[in-house]
Amino acid sequence: MATEALGALQLYLRETRLLGSINSCLYWDQNTTMPTAAAAWRGEQLALLAGQLHKRQCSPAYAALIAAAEQSLDQLDGAERPGWQRNLQLLREQLERQRKLDPQLVQHLAAARSRGYSLWQQARSDDDFALFAPALEELIRLRLEQARQLAEPRSPWETLAQPFEPDLFHGRLAELFAPLHQRLPVLMERVRSRQRLEPPAWSLPEPLQLDLCNQLLRAWGFDSSQCVLARSPHPFSVTLGPNDFRITLRCAVDQPLSAILAVAHEWGHSLYEQSLPRGQAQWFAWPLGDATSMGVHESQSLFWENRVARSRAFAERWAPRFAERLGAAPWGDGCGFWQAMNPMKPGLTRVEADELSYCLHILLRYQLEIELLEQGLPVAELPRRWTALMQDKLGLIPPSDSLGCLQDVHWSEGLFGYFPSYALGHLISAQLAEAMEAAIGSIDDHIAAAEEATLLAWLRQHVHPLGRSVNAEQLVEHVTGRPLSAQPFLTYLEKKLERLLACS
Amino acid sequence: MATEALGALQLYLRETRLLGSINSCLYWDQNTTMPTAAAAWRGEQLALLAGQLHKRQCSPAYAALIAAAEQSLDQLDGAERPGWQRNLQLLREQLERQRKLDPQLVQHLAAARSRGYSLWQQARSDDDFALFAPALEELIRLRLEQARQLAEPRSPWETLAQPFEPDLFHGRLAELFAPLHQRLPVLMERVRSRQRLEPPAWSLPEPLQLDLCNQLLRAWGFDSSQCVLARSPHPFSVTLGPNDFRITLRCAVDQPLSAILAVAHEWGHSLYEQSLPRGQAQWFAWPLGDATSMGVHESQSLFWENRVARSRAFAERWAPRFAERLGAAPWGDGCGFWQAMNPMKPGLTRVEADELSYCLHILLRYQLEIELLEQGLPVAELPRRWTALMQDKLGLIPPSDSLGCLQDVHWSEGLFGYFPSYALGHLISAQLAEAMEAAIGSIDDHIAAAEEATLLAWLRQHVHPLGRSVNAEQLVEHVTGRPLSAQPFLTYLEKKLERLLACS
Repeated sequence: MATEALGALQLYLRETRLLGSINSCLYWDQNTTMPTAAAAWRGEQLALLAGQLHKRQCSPAYAALIAAAEQSLDQLDGAERPGWQRNLQLLREQLERQRKLDPQLVQHLAAARSRGYSLWQQARSDDDFALFAPALEELIRLRLEQARQLAEPRSPWETLAQPFEPDLFHGRLAELFAPLHQRLPVLMERVRSRQRLEPPAWSLPEPLQLDLCNQLLRAWGFDSSQCVLARSPHPFSVTLGPNDFRITLRCAVDQPLSAILAVAHEWGHSLYEQSLPRGQAQWFAWPLGDATSMGVHESQSLFWENRVARSRAFAERWAPRFAERLGAAPWGDGCGFWQAMNPMKPGLTRVEADELSYCLHILLRYQLEIELLEQGLPVAELPRRWTALMQDKLGLIPPSDSLGCLQDVHWSEGLFGYFPSYALGHLISAQLAEAMEAAIGSIDDHIAAAEEATLLAWLRQHVHPLGRSVNAEQLVEHVTGRPLSAQPFLTYLEKKLERLLACS
Repeated sequence: MATEALGALQLYLRETRLLGSINSCLYWDQNTTMPTAAAAWRGEQLALLAGQLHKRQCSPAYAALIAAAEQSLDQLDGAERPGWQRNLQLLREQLERQRKLDPQLVQHLAAARSRGYSLWQQARSDDDFALFAPALEELIRLRLEQARQLAEPRSPWETLAQPFEPDLFHGRLAELFAPLHQRLPVLMERVRSRQRLEPPAWSLPEPLQLDLCNQLLRAWGFDSSQCVLARSPHPFSVTLGPNDFRITLRCAVDQPLSAILAVAHEWGHSLYEQSLPRGQAQWFAWPLGDATSMGVHESQSLFWENRVARSRAFAERWAPRFAERLGAAPWGDGCGFWQAMNPMKPGLTRVEADELSYCLHILLRYQLEIELLEQGLPVAELPRRWTALMQDKLGLIPPSDSLGCLQDVHWSEGLFGYFPSYALGHLISAQLAEAMEAAIGSIDDHIAAAEEATLLAWLRQHVHPLGRSVNAEQLVEHVTGRPLSAQPFLTYLEKKLERLLACS
């Protein structure tokens, strides 16, 4: 270890990671295996660990370890110093954030989250927004109080978004999103005006879907000595230890493409986790070994889902594999299969949205978060505003609040400031892909030649090793040589739409 | 809560249970899902929890809580007092045992266990006893030191057997086992002299085995809202919470009966766990809600495996189900199927032994433990002694130490005093079954009528609710009205052998 004080701090961080990963293992089990009647006890286990983790992360002993490590930086030579300095700066920021919060507020928030989540579930299933509204009001009140206590030189929404997307401001988001506001409705109109035939519906038994998913993962480097694939009601990716990477999928017989696309998405998250610079103890347990933002994380999953698995080249290669298992090809040729993978049709729900409408769902949520947190929109008005914006942006009117403002889990847990990361993921993915193509040639050509490994190698060389040494925008600029913008995404999307519409 | 002090103690015990069950969840995951490369990190997680648990179980705060609870017993009325008294007595015993141990010894033992286990694995795979011998010597030395520090009015072996089989002494074991020593060799000879035809080998694909196992579990009350079945290299049963019961199986295509028998066995363990008196908070987190001994636990698994699943009536009912899936009945009629489930042929390994030879494997190990721990047998002599006893008791000579004294995991982790519980399980199961038949009629008749639920109901009424209110021998006497003896087991076995040999 570089200095004795850094060594002592590392031991402490390692134990925190151990506890955190135990927590993740319980979460994994809960979502893949646990029987329903065990939920209450599992809740108590998770609360116990959360309490231990919280205590560790704002204890005086921890603060002393950080202070000693900071003082020891003088002993380091110039080459070593910047990395350690960045680690300590990130730890210090997090510690100060924790210490500014009134412990009572932390407790109230935990209780409000748990209450909010449970009321949201009921409200969604009963389609009764009024049931959830008081809980949402309370969550907004407590989160605003949290932002006030943090007292950062940022607006309340910006303060709450920090943990997901460090250093992001409204002004910058407005700049990044303006072209989306302008162009996406135009593109949607273009698709709408060229009415296409609905592809015929077909279904595929679950074992065959699983088989295809496993085939995809093997081709994309799934190593069963350190990776696990299981099933869960909602697909997710989670890292349980330095050599323990897991993803889940969901199979629906009638949505025969959804499992493989979800696997591509979750595997993209996992690939990023697998090559962060924490293996072999380099930055293990230190911030520099972590993902730098949710937007960057999402850019990696979206790259594998949209740029690779939803590409024409991929469709051409995989259509015969699906046809072989199905014993038929109701979609016609590879082009028909590609169109089935890319419906490009606006819908009511975010999680089912395609590349064309996804960001519009995000713009809507981001705007409503600003209105709720910073412009005094009464919670009771939320359903009305949701419907108005939905009609404005996507031309659709939700038939119920369950399919409207109650569809996402985030707000029920007080998670504000998270949604824009999804849209940023699209932008970042496209801009990185542009740089990738400049370096190694057409992505589609590599996919056509079954050389996805070349794409992964490029990401592993240029993107993944950066960890938290840079924030999301710095990462993009570092890798692509240009500031982040929506242009690469819109250029890519426009080209793809042209080809999709031309294809027949 | 009965008194305030008992309430405070219960809160403490509950948190200990939460931590213990988190530990069990990690163990479950390790054996059913975890990828191999994750083993080192998992080891650190388990060590962290073990450290926390150990600290809790001998902390001054805990001791003070117990002392206060003991003093508060006076406030209870006569009817309430005995249960609480027993709880506190058991907690006090365990605490005193923990406190007598030098913490250094505890650490040394943990290290020696982990080293022993790893060397044993290598020694067994290389068939090289000398590699394991020094670790075994060290484990024996440390365990004897542990017994010395515990300073109980028992021999060292008896002291170490306490956690598995409370209140058991050599003298009593000699009494219980003497009839086994006498009769089992005679019965083995009887079978040997009547040479039977080997049943033809057959195999069954794994999905069909799984399907039959699931059918069995459903018939035996498996409730998927609180139970889970998964696969693991070695079958086991584990309880992860008050409403979370899990078992595993292993499928081998060429051993088509092994999975269903293992499921019957593990489900027997689980049924006991499921109806211990800890549900609905009665004795939850208190000792009275726990299993009273390993022998009693084993009696429950053996009842369902041997008395039920290996019975003639069960074979008659299930042979057609196997035949249907296999599309053939290579075993002939139900009688042939029954014989295939009961080979009654001595073998080298304990875990594959049948009802006839199983206890002989145990008698051998028990004798060697006495010689190693209390009669100065040098570890280097173990392989020679093992072979001699194997020849004497089972008429077999192991071709290697891997199939001889290196076959079991127990000693590699310093686990001495455990083996006799397996044999006690056979005796207890038989004596409880005798009482059951006296009360509700022939067990075979109930099985023939597919009324296993009646057997379970009897166990749930008479055996399971006792928890740790009694020790194993008290439980048997309480339920059957007579002291534990080997007679019911030998009577049952003799009758079964007669019928097996007569059946054709």
